[in-house]
Amino acid sequence: MKLATLRTGTSTTAARIEEADGEAVEVSAADVGVLLAQSDWHQIAAAAAGTRHSLDQVDYAPLVPKPGKVVCVGQNYRAHIEEQGAAMPQFPTLFAKYTSALTGARDEVVLPAVSDAVDWEVELAVIIGWPAYRVGEDEAMKAVAGYAVLNDVSMRDWQFRTSQFLQGKTFDKATALGPWLVTRDDSDVDESGMDLSCEINGEVVQRGNTSNMVFGVAQIVSYISQFTTLRPGDVIATGTPGGSGHFIEPKRYLKDGDLLVTKVAGLGECRNLFRRESP
Amino acid sequence: MKLATLRTGTSTTAARIEEADGEAVEVSAADVGVLLAQSDWHQIAAAAAGTRHSLDQVDYAPLVPKPGKVVCVGQNYRAHIEEQGAAMPQFPTLFAKYTSALTGARDEVVLPAVSDAVDWEVELAVIIGWPAYRVGEDEAMKAVAGYAVLNDVSMRDWQFRTSQFLQGKTFDKATALGPWLVTRDDSDVDESGMDLSCEINGEVVQRGNTSNMVFGVAQIVSYISQFTTLRPGDVIATGTPGGSGHFIEPKRYLKDGDLLVTKVAGLGECRNLFRRESP
Repeated sequence: MKLATLRTGTSTTAARIEEADGEAVEVSAADVGVLLAQSDWHQIAAAAAGTRHSLDQVDYAPLVPKPGKVVCVGQNYRAHIEEQGAAMPQFPTLFAKYTSALTGARDEVVLPAVSDAVDWEVELAVIIGWPAYRVGEDEAMKAVAGYAVLNDVSMRDWQFRTSQFLQGKTFDKATALGPWLVTRDDSDVDESGMDLSCEINGEVVQRGNTSNMVFGVAQIVSYISQFTTLRPGDVIATGTPGGSGHFIEPKRYLKDGDLLVTKVAGLGECRNLFRRESP
Repeated sequence: MKLATLRTGTSTTAARIEEADGEAVEVSAADVGVLLAQSDWHQIAAAAAGTRHSLDQVDYAPLVPKPGKVVCVGQNYRAHIEEQGAAMPQFPTLFAKYTSALTGARDEVVLPAVSDAVDWEVELAVIIGWPAYRVGEDEAMKAVAGYAVLNDVSMRDWQFRTSQFLQGKTFDKATALGPWLVTRDDSDVDESGMDLSCEINGEVVQRGNTSNMVFGVAQIVSYISQFTTLRPGDVIATGTPGGSGHFIEPKRYLKDGDLLVTKVAGLGECRNLFRRESP
């Protein structure tokens, strides 16, 4: 099952995506986060028979517009760690984005006047579906609602001003999350071996597979749950493979007019046009 | 004017604190964050004449229970930087806590079984009262509702596992925020020269003054507003002076039964008893 949050005039609605029919069916919840807060969300969403919209016409909001937490895992692909010349980590490196960083899967993104180094990072996003506190790795997957595509867009000049990444990771409305939540029971989903890629204007700049992750989904969920309660709607960005622009020579960053396409096989894609802000 | 969020059975309410009368007067808003979301919050709060409670009887919730952001400034006191042997920073070091990290000013705090290195950090917290995006330092103070006391309790073993502090900074319900928001117009408030201190069982372990900050309140607000919109209820923890347990020799951490008292002159104090979790 695929679920999305759609913009409807001044509001939003959760919807079930029927790809075969090319339609989105409204679910009675303001967004996917509100839906997931109901423990029987899967049944509610599967049974919903609200207003239908053609997928050609829909406007995707951030999949979960107001998650309680966005947790990001850094240095989690062997190839990305090697291109940075770093050692293999013993523990997951974790940092945060604020909710305000999220944007929709088809939204234009502003290249801010204050940064000259806006970079891309395709990631598999885990969406939490049920609370988890101090769960073991064997129990962790029970908390996972499913997966989505995320681009951890990073302002490298800000990220590396100090030791802490936050300021370069949480520019408003720069992190695309969507288009859909694909639930774990969906036959397309096998988190241990999904292809990821990132394209700029049709040129593939990142390519990877989740089998290259240092810490897998169950390990990450279990680890985070040792110090905080993961709750429905929380988002975990699981790290990026090699090929980000800051770590290649010569360095490369997003330019005015670039179309960034972020894909995870089976989960659809985010397509975001980047526009330089007027100075 | 002093404002607080009080627990009332299963719910919470905002309240105006009348210290001279020893009373809290209910304000018609679920908490201080909800109150601040109304642009005329100052008038609403000043005029409120709801149910009165004796201050001896009230139960303080986290001052803002669900802020959109908790932004923390690291290495912002000259004395704390010197005890770590670090260079004076050119830019503010920023990291996040999740909302779930907050706890009330009188709450018991759990010393978690998974950490042996729970440390204290008295901080001046800035509470945002009006939206601010890309404001200059000369305009920044207009966004500030006022101030409160925060203890940036830090699990040092987790904080320093990787390069990113987040996991040691955001254990659930470990960061006291309160007891009150003291609004900027209050005569007790001069953010450029406030004494801070932290005591364990009556012994003073930290002492400082906000005049020792590297980046002042207006600079911090302006800086953060360059990359994200600060909104009413957002919390900024402005860093800690010297004397945290991890940076003295021999190192010292909180123990079962320790009473941590966190004070900022003019803002009241947080008093939190720490209890070791059963293994």
